[in-house]
Amino acid sequence: MNTNLTNPKEMEIPSTLREMGRASRIAAKTLARATPEQKNLALRSAAAALRKSLPDLLAANARDVAAATASGLSPAMLDRLKLGAGGVEAMAVGLEAIAQLADPIGTVLAQWTRPNGMVIQRQRVPLGVIGIIYESRPNVTADAGALCLKSSNAVILRGGSESIHSSAAIHACLVEGLTKAGLPASAIQLVPTTDRAAVGFMLADMADYIDVIIPRGGKNLVARVQKEARVPVIGHLEGNCHLFVDRDADLEMAKRILINAKLRRTGICGAAETLLVDKAGVDRLLAPLVAALLDAGCEVRGDPAVCRVDSRVTAATEDDWFTEYLDAIIAVRVVDGVDAAVEHIERYGSQHTEAIVTGNAATAERFLQGVDSAIVLHNASTQFADGGEFGMGAEIGISTDKFHARGPVGVEQLTSYKYLVRGSGQIR
Amino acid sequence: MNTNLTNPKEMEIPSTLREMGRASRIAAKTLARATPEQKNLALRSAAAALRKSLPDLLAANARDVAAATASGLSPAMLDRLKLGAGGVEAMAVGLEAIAQLADPIGTVLAQWTRPNGMVIQRQRVPLGVIGIIYESRPNVTADAGALCLKSSNAVILRGGSESIHSSAAIHACLVEGLTKAGLPASAIQLVPTTDRAAVGFMLADMADYIDVIIPRGGKNLVARVQKEARVPVIGHLEGNCHLFVDRDADLEMAKRILINAKLRRTGICGAAETLLVDKAGVDRLLAPLVAALLDAGCEVRGDPAVCRVDSRVTAATEDDWFTEYLDAIIAVRVVDGVDAAVEHIERYGSQHTEAIVTGNAATAERFLQGVDSAIVLHNASTQFADGGEFGMGAEIGISTDKFHARGPVGVEQLTSYKYLVRGSGQIR
Repeated sequence: MNTNLTNPKEMEIPSTLREMGRASRIAAKTLARATPEQKNLALRSAAAALRKSLPDLLAANARDVAAATASGLSPAMLDRLKLGAGGVEAMAVGLEAIAQLADPIGTVLAQWTRPNGMVIQRQRVPLGVIGIIYESRPNVTADAGALCLKSSNAVILRGGSESIHSSAAIHACLVEGLTKAGLPASAIQLVPTTDRAAVGFMLADMADYIDVIIPRGGKNLVARVQKEARVPVIGHLEGNCHLFVDRDADLEMAKRILINAKLRRTGICGAAETLLVDKAGVDRLLAPLVAALLDAGCEVRGDPAVCRVDSRVTAATEDDWFTEYLDAIIAVRVVDGVDAAVEHIERYGSQHTEAIVTGNAATAERFLQGVDSAIVLHNASTQFADGGEFGMGAEIGISTDKFHARGPVGVEQLTSYKYLVRGSGQIR
Repeated sequence: MNTNLTNPKEMEIPSTLREMGRASRIAAKTLARATPEQKNLALRSAAAALRKSLPDLLAANARDVAAATASGLSPAMLDRLKLGAGGVEAMAVGLEAIAQLADPIGTVLAQWTRPNGMVIQRQRVPLGVIGIIYESRPNVTADAGALCLKSSNAVILRGGSESIHSSAAIHACLVEGLTKAGLPASAIQLVPTTDRAAVGFMLADMADYIDVIIPRGGKNLVARVQKEARVPVIGHLEGNCHLFVDRDADLEMAKRILINAKLRRTGICGAAETLLVDKAGVDRLLAPLVAALLDAGCEVRGDPAVCRVDSRVTAATEDDWFTEYLDAIIAVRVVDGVDAAVEHIERYGSQHTEAIVTGNAATAERFLQGVDSAIVLHNASTQFADGGEFGMGAEIGISTDKFHARGPVGVEQLTSYKYLVRGSGQIR
């Protein structure tokens, strides 16, 4: 398999990236006119190519893993990098699932007739060219490429240097799918160098070619992108998610949701990082909830009231309320009712995802309306913060911006709209 | 009337603006919970205050006009600055019209139930705090303040230095309306200095307080804002709008739309700047269309084919195709059919507003779908590019971005959304 990797030293970054940008613009025009069937054929053919290329993909991934191991990558990062047969199959299934989603392009979002007889339609259109900058997970190559294709956007992918061979092998399968469907290979391009200067160039010098940049990765990557980008950015910085257990909560439900929200997977952005317990429910709720966490192997850092209920709790500092642990650690605080919970979240939260457990419908509504986060849940786990779980098919991330897209970024969030106005000679 | 103007020399810009920012954040929270009735009462009370304060408003405007005349402001700018009794009444009527619009906040945009029983709602919420930077038109103070209030956003207004006394007097009326409705005065704030450093500070150092900046004014202002802003920007750079008259156009309709699109008002962004005429219709259409323009007092710059039909036509240069004249000047070119028209627009246009005149439905659809502009019209004037004409009540401008808001920016475009998820104990 030819993965088209260039020796960074031999590559002239500005000219290569500008050439990729020009090709993207041309591909975007073709994609805007592509039929749903063509795009879905490309996705299904890419899935078939992934399955067919399993040995090549595993070999490419083994090269990345060997290099990363040699360079001392952390076990957590290595885990993200590793691709097995199951991972390849999951990517293929993901492409097929995206093929099955409703096509967003051309949808009439609204239509109305003016008193003068003009008919105005708001119609969904692609954004154009999307730049995606990500880290070590090679499956992002398939997911992001597919979501952009489904939404008729051309994409320039810039994967992490650790996963460059894996990403290139996956990218080759996507290109095979495009070709089979008669779509331009340049609809999905992969930056063929690990040189970090390419990222800087994408962010600052490609405004003529890239309409929006989406960073997918850790806080440092997203912060860098938001700082340097000269084009719009869709990105989430962090998920410091809260679970508030109200005085009217069912204890068993609260326990089940708490353990799931904190511990199902600790490394994802929807994992709960702080538990808030209603003061009026402390006697009934606090000790069993804290014990459940500790017994499940979770470190608990609490305020003085929490420290008192279990000797295994350590004292939380002010920093703990701000921290996204992404680990089996939780901060626990007693607050005086739902309003105090909303205030705590406003002060320390990251406007990502928060949940309340309560049997009181009025308290639940007060929380749902009062919390200014992308996702607010009642009696459900914060780990549902996920495009797939929302029924959006797949996502490229969870946006904590309020601008353009908020919450899960799926195919609809990768679109814009235009107005079509049909008249019969109207003038002003 | 106390207009609260501070001597710029005595004002510490960073501390003053940060204090305004903090007040905006607090006001935004109150606005998010304000009822539609409260907001509408504030708007109607502000309209009443404008009418009551007519003498003060005219006096404040006279001060601005006298200073601007002395400093040699251009007649066109002076014209924008001048406020008469009719202008004040128009502002008051505008506020009342915005009060009558449907309230956008809290609207459920979509709702669905997941197989696990969770009910997901996408609900409209305000953006938060909006910064608006504008030039000499004092009525923008009222329009922009009212649109932000209606959409439950706090706003920091920074008007042009020429209109500072007029804007301050109008702002005082808006504050009177807020106060009468029991809403915080800091919901609508006006930067109390003409020091240009305040603009730079808003763009670069207020990211903690301002969620989005909207520039309203000429190309230079918008370009500066887009270059310097450290927060998202909704802005339109220019409207180089095209009218394409197809071979199947009705001549009389084409003439009527052309004269309206070019000459109704030449200084607005929806004014047509280039006329494209289909080669296959030249014999029937070109001479009468060009004559109609010239006879109406419009300068015509044409390609060689156009120069040949009337001796009054001057030769267009390559620059003319790129130019937004905002004046009684038009560029005219013969193109070979609808596809060539689309190509010309793609190359030279600004993705604002374009129109086709044709009796052929298939050609019209090809144009409507093929042109990638915010607004594309069939058999109607480009001067309909306006939120009011679209039935959106009022607008803060026309966005040529594809990101977040495209086309007229009305109250709905000043909102975001969040997801409310109602469960019964679901975990992943």
